[in-house]
Amino acid sequence: MTDPQRALTIGVDYGTLSGRAVIVRVHDGAELGTGVHEYSHAVMDRTLTAGPASASAAPVQLPPDWALQVPQDYVDVLKVAVPAAIARAQADHGIDLADIIGVGTDFTACTMVPTTVDGTPLCELDGFGDRPHAYTKLWKHHAAQGQADRINALAHARGEGWIARYGGLVSSEWEFAKGLQVLEEDREVYDAIDHWVEAADWIVWQLCGTYVRNACTAGYKGIYQDGRYPSEEFLSALNPDFARFVTDKVEHTIGRLGAVAGRLTAEAAAWTGLPEGIAVAVGNVDAHVTAPAAGAVEPGQMTAIMGTSTCHVMNGDELHEVPGMCGVVDGGIVEGLWGYEAGQSGVGDIFGWFVTSAVPPAYVDAAAAAGVSVHEHLTALAAQQQIGEHGLVALDWHSGNRSVLVDHELSGVVVGQTLATKPEDTYRALLEATAFGTRTVVEAFQDSGVPVTELVVAGGLLKNRLLMQIYADVTRLPLSTIASDQGPALGSAIHAAVAAGAYPDVRTAAAVMGKRTRSAYLPVPESSARYDALFAEYTTLHDYFGRGANDVMHRLRAIRREATASAAGTASETEASA
Amino acid sequence: MTDPQRALTIGVDYGTLSGRAVIVRVHDGAELGTGVHEYSHAVMDRTLTAGPASASAAPVQLPPDWALQVPQDYVDVLKVAVPAAIARAQADHGIDLADIIGVGTDFTACTMVPTTVDGTPLCELDGFGDRPHAYTKLWKHHAAQGQADRINALAHARGEGWIARYGGLVSSEWEFAKGLQVLEEDREVYDAIDHWVEAADWIVWQLCGTYVRNACTAGYKGIYQDGRYPSEEFLSALNPDFARFVTDKVEHTIGRLGAVAGRLTAEAAAWTGLPEGIAVAVGNVDAHVTAPAAGAVEPGQMTAIMGTSTCHVMNGDELHEVPGMCGVVDGGIVEGLWGYEAGQSGVGDIFGWFVTSAVPPAYVDAAAAAGVSVHEHLTALAAQQQIGEHGLVALDWHSGNRSVLVDHELSGVVVGQTLATKPEDTYRALLEATAFGTRTVVEAFQDSGVPVTELVVAGGLLKNRLLMQIYADVTRLPLSTIASDQGPALGSAIHAAVAAGAYPDVRTAAAVMGKRTRSAYLPVPESSARYDALFAEYTTLHDYFGRGANDVMHRLRAIRREATASAAGTASETEASA
Repeated sequence: MTDPQRALTIGVDYGTLSGRAVIVRVHDGAELGTGVHEYSHAVMDRTLTAGPASASAAPVQLPPDWALQVPQDYVDVLKVAVPAAIARAQADHGIDLADIIGVGTDFTACTMVPTTVDGTPLCELDGFGDRPHAYTKLWKHHAAQGQADRINALAHARGEGWIARYGGLVSSEWEFAKGLQVLEEDREVYDAIDHWVEAADWIVWQLCGTYVRNACTAGYKGIYQDGRYPSEEFLSALNPDFARFVTDKVEHTIGRLGAVAGRLTAEAAAWTGLPEGIAVAVGNVDAHVTAPAAGAVEPGQMTAIMGTSTCHVMNGDELHEVPGMCGVVDGGIVEGLWGYEAGQSGVGDIFGWFVTSAVPPAYVDAAAAAGVSVHEHLTALAAQQQIGEHGLVALDWHSGNRSVLVDHELSGVVVGQTLATKPEDTYRALLEATAFGTRTVVEAFQDSGVPVTELVVAGGLLKNRLLMQIYADVTRLPLSTIASDQGPALGSAIHAAVAAGAYPDVRTAAAVMGKRTRSAYLPVPESSARYDALFAEYTTLHDYFGRGANDVMHRLRAIRREATASAAGTASETEASA
Repeated sequence: MTDPQRALTIGVDYGTLSGRAVIVRVHDGAELGTGVHEYSHAVMDRTLTAGPASASAAPVQLPPDWALQVPQDYVDVLKVAVPAAIARAQADHGIDLADIIGVGTDFTACTMVPTTVDGTPLCELDGFGDRPHAYTKLWKHHAAQGQADRINALAHARGEGWIARYGGLVSSEWEFAKGLQVLEEDREVYDAIDHWVEAADWIVWQLCGTYVRNACTAGYKGIYQDGRYPSEEFLSALNPDFARFVTDKVEHTIGRLGAVAGRLTAEAAAWTGLPEGIAVAVGNVDAHVTAPAAGAVEPGQMTAIMGTSTCHVMNGDELHEVPGMCGVVDGGIVEGLWGYEAGQSGVGDIFGWFVTSAVPPAYVDAAAAAGVSVHEHLTALAAQQQIGEHGLVALDWHSGNRSVLVDHELSGVVVGQTLATKPEDTYRALLEATAFGTRTVVEAFQDSGVPVTELVVAGGLLKNRLLMQIYADVTRLPLSTIASDQGPALGSAIHAAVAAGAYPDVRTAAAVMGKRTRSAYLPVPESSARYDALFAEYTTLHDYFGRGANDVMHRLRAIRREATASAAGTASETEASA
């Protein structure tokens, strides 16, 4: 038995483009070594760059909105990033391999691998290498929107109780929409699927040789609520051939988060250099493991993972139905609490869009001269302003709304621009708009009986101090920031520690191993009062444009679609007559 | 007597920064020679660059929103630009000086010169050279807003009939607001004023030695309606010392447009090189003389002078009160018809603001590489789009609204931006927004019983062919363009021809000498139908933000003022404590 003071675990975080492994000391959460590996096929969204035809002159083309991956790339992370992390921890801290007692993983979700009964991805079978549907469908594969629309319509028509657990809307990204797409577009692949596996679980299967479905994705992405999936009647009404989807391909043993899925196989030990037989934790999702990594799994602590978009995860003691939430799952974040997930579909990507498409050369040059990014330059200028000095209010819907309105056809608004409006004015208004969006989410929880008492920020945007202060002021919440650059991997290492028996549960482990700077930003009452006035304007516009008073955004989308279709029609007519 | 086939007149157009003279052949309007002179003092808006102190180390500082000029600069135009135009016409066309039978002028308005009884500007008097109020107040001197607000409030409170002739609002730019400011800020200058003279009339006075007030500015800027000015009671209620403003300083003989104000003096003949004794036409305003220059003085022809802002001038057979019009004046454009004026406070300046502050380096570089302006580059990209393809609708209120809403605290709106929105999308939406603004003005006239049957465009923006087609499509009007680069100067030459007796009236002269390309752009019915859908969205937003349903724009202004004041307060506190 390892000396508890020396025990280590390893967390492996599977992101969209790469995997990252971190060796963590169990008794204090210290991070001792890191390794990274980029997927060699990255994301396949235009052509199939794997399979026999990929080397030919005519690789398989992919339709719009597709996003595929190659499962072998995930295994390569085990072969490269894990040994690299070990080597680094040995070199820097002289760790002993024998002190590693467990491995945990987290993954993007919902990312789905179609496999045979033994877990072999279909794309690795003879005859399937050139069939897109045989590959992993990455979370951002959005080509099943038509299927998702039908699932939602039918759920509401039939009054399915589970739809309320998802804020009234399941996503095209999730298990059922993606599965139905396979059925309806490539029946042979569909019929060959023995298991429709979350990548989060597939990688655990590779590590320990056992397929265990994790409670997190089963609930949030697999519509598993109150011990059951959507019924055969429901599935049959979607498509008669889909009736046995759950029974034949989805249903499987579910493991609670932090539990042990199995023991590291000899094969996986050889890949990774880890000791054979150590505990392998049940799989999990990147956003959800970040909450324990930030030591923020107690009810009332809302963890916001802020990047291009924001994902909010939070535990509550009770089940409530919160408008617009992405999901509520029993034990979805930690065992014994209701895990809530919510989101803002556009945050950092709105700032990025503005910087790329709406900032003039003089600003870009000034940033370069100062040796800072354009974001930093605009932020520094915006930080000099008084609250409200720009005279603007914006709606942060450039990527639709996945908060309380759940409407992906909404779009951005800026009100108040004059001939004196400068780029930093609009930039600041957009920062504030996303803070107002967060306050809207927080209030939806509060108003639904789920208290929020602390905002814990993880993700790349926490580096922007102005943005953080705005969020604290706007929400009137103490704002903490995660004190690790490797939030998800640390969270996975915490789960590994629990699976290995070093802590009784994730809450206890998170309290010790999780790291955050508490109250890094506190609301300034005078600032909060000033923002209240702007938030009132935001809310009025939010409801006007978002709740049907003026459906202009939907009509503009329809006009746009018609105009684009007409343009395409004109083009093809021209071609036809040419 | 000059051979009618050879008769010439000269028009002199006084703009904001320069004056321009054009020699025009009376029988066909041909332009034979041009001369230009830039005012040496340009616009004084920060310091007084004229007067004794201007050469010292401590020139007189001007408060915000001031804009002054030096009258002698106007005389210099006569001494430089007129001889240059003559010399050019002699060199190119061998004209005979003796064939020049009249001179006409037009001016910016309302631009006011305080003078002694003989027309000497007060700034030229000993002891007044360093007093800002002794100088010309240019049209864009906006420091009398407080006075204008009081005039408007009192007019409505007293139920003055004339206020309706100005769309319910007189401007801070006009004669009474500016005059009241002088009284209240520099009593000695005020008391020294014998005549409060429109620069349009002052220059005519210099040419012919006679002060004649022109019917155009008297009506549009001097609140002269139905043969009288605002009453002594009204003026006294504004400020008891202002009671005799009209009687003492404003009231004077009014000359109809196209009439002869007098004969060219020997002194002015010496300045200009023009024959002594030729007819000098009654003064006029740049926008208003453009209508005859475009041959567009018949009822139903709306002339839009499109530059940084747009001024609409149009004649009607009858008096109607049109919501938001700038003014309606009997004989205000041509004798015998009701002259209507309306406007859009932001047009080209909105496009300019966008290009300066919201277009990224790649676009600026691409424009430079193509050897075109950024405007031209964006226009070329926007022209490739189908109507509605950008998915946007905007409100053109970045410079307030001087159309039917008459509210300078309104501001811009853009609805519909997404992460896929490109600069040319927003640029096109702004072009369209100004076209929707024009349609709103046109409909206000139509709905008030003043038919509009043709849109005649003058001004710099007519070069943008995409913009012109959008205007034709949006308004469903045939759109003509003025066929002269010297619209105002040509218009002044037309007035000179009438004053000299070559034509019985301006309508007749304009029909011969005026030049426009008729129906240069015709509405395309399919395009008009598509724009109808977007115009409906514009109108909904126009009324929502502009008519009180959501007063967010006013509140944002108030918040901004408060924030700015608080910032200033903080700064001065800091200074005080430093």
